[in-house]
Amino acid sequence: MSRELSENEVAAALSGLDGWESESHELVKTYKFPTFRAAIAFIVRISFEADEMNHHPELRNVYNRVRVALCTHDAGSVVTEKDVTLAEKIEKIASSSMAEAG
Amino acid sequence: MSRELSENEVAAALSGLDGWESESHELVKTYKFPTFRAAIAFIVRISFEADEMNHHPELRNVYNRVRVALCTHDAGSVVTEKDVTLAEKIEKIASSSMAEAG
Amino acid sequence: MSRELSENEVAAALSGLDGWESESHELVKTYKFPTFRAAIAFIVRISFEADEMNHHPELRNVYNRVRVALCTHDAGSVVTEKDVTLAEKIEKIASSSMAEAG
Amino acid sequence: MSRELSENEVAAALSGLDGWESESHELVKTYKFPTFRAAIAFIVRISFEADEMNHHPELRNVYNRVRVALCTHDAGSVVTEKDVTLAEKIEKIASSSMAEAG
Repeated sequence: MSRELSENEVAAALSGLDGWESESHELVKTYKFPTFRAAIAFIVRISFEADEMNHHPELRNVYNRVRVALCTHDAGSVVTEKDVTLAEKIEKIASSSMAEAG
Repeated sequence: MSRELSENEVAAALSGLDGWESESHELVKTYKFPTFRAAIAFIVRISFEADEMNHHPELRNVYNRVRVALCTHDAGSVVTEKDVTLAEKIEKIASSSMAEAG
Repeated sequence: MSRELSENEVAAALSGLDGWESESHELVKTYKFPTFRAAIAFIVRISFEADEMNHHPELRNVYNRVRVALCTHDAGSVVTEKDVTLAEKIEKIASSSMAEAG
Repeated sequence: MSRELSENEVAAALSGLDGWESESHELVKTYKFPTFRAAIAFIVRISFEADEMNHHPELRNVYNRVRVALCTHDAGSVVTEKDVTLAEKIEKIASSSMAEAG
C-alpha cells in the first residue's frame, strides 16, 4: 500500500506540476476551459486514467472549470505517490492537443 | 430573467423531485451509481440538457457518486424555475434505462 | 492469444446474446436509444470496458443508434472469446438503468 | 430548408477544410488521435455541436480513429451549408488544445 509522502516529497512533486497545490492533504488544481463542453470532454478524457489506476479524484465542475483534488483514501486520505502519478497524467492530458496534426 | 422562488414554491417543486433537497439557496441531490464508469456516463448524459439550457450545475464526482447542485447565478444565486426545470430533466434521465428495449 | 471460435461456439454464444448476430467474422448489434444524447453517453459508458480489455469495437453512430461490431484483429480479424466477453459486458450495460434506485 | 450545394460550392468549402473530402454526397474526414481515450473524448466534445444544430454526423470509431461523415438527410442526403458549418466547427475543435494555458 502507498505511504504518505513527506512535506519535502510533496514539495518536490509540486515543483514539476504547474499550477498544482497542496491543500489539507490533497493535491489540487483548477483547470479552466474555453467552454463547458470542453470541460466535460476533459472529465471524460481523464476518467480513463482514474479508472485504470482505480484511483478516483474528487472532480468539481461549474461551467468551464474543473477542479481536480487527489488524495489516497486507503492510506488514510493523505497524499501518496499514486496522487502524484495521476496528477502528472492529468497535467499531460490537459496540455495536449485534441487531435494529432494531420 | 428568472425570479427567486418563494419557500412555498420551492417546497411544492421538491414534493415532485424524489431525493432532492433545498440547501442554502440551491437544489441538491447526490446520485449513486453502480460504478465510477456509470457516474461519468451520467455526467455526459445530463451535460446536454445543461448546455441546451445554458444553465450549468455544480457537479461533484467522487467514485460512484455525483452530487448535482443547482442555482441561478444571474438571478443572484438563488433557486428559480430554471433550476426546477433542470432538476426535473436530470431526475427523468437518472431513472431511465440506458437503451430502449430491443 | 485468442483462437477463432468455431461456428458452433459462435452459435452457442449468440444464443445468450439478445439481438447480436454474426456477420462476416464479426459479432454485431445495433442499439437504439431514446435520443442522440443517450447514444453518446452509451458510447462513453462502454468505452471503459473496451479500454480495460484493450479490445476496441468498431462503433458507428448516427443520431440515436449505435452499431457495435466486434472482432479480434490480432487473431486475424475473426471472432474469439474476447469478442463474446465484450459483447456480454456491453449487453449487460445496455439493459441496466442509469442510476441505482435511491 | 437547406439546398444542395453545387460542385463549385463544395469545392470552395473544402478548400478551407484541411483534410476533408467529398465522397458520394458526404463531407468526410478521418481524425487520428494519440489514443482510443482521446478519440472518445473527441466524440463527446463534438457531439455538443451536433446536438445544438440538431444535425447528426455518421461517426465511426475504431481504436484511435474517428471518421466523421456529414450529409443533410432532410434535403435528400446531399451536402448543404449545414454540413459545411458543422465541419468547420469540428475542425476548429480538433485543432484546439484540451485546456487553456494556465
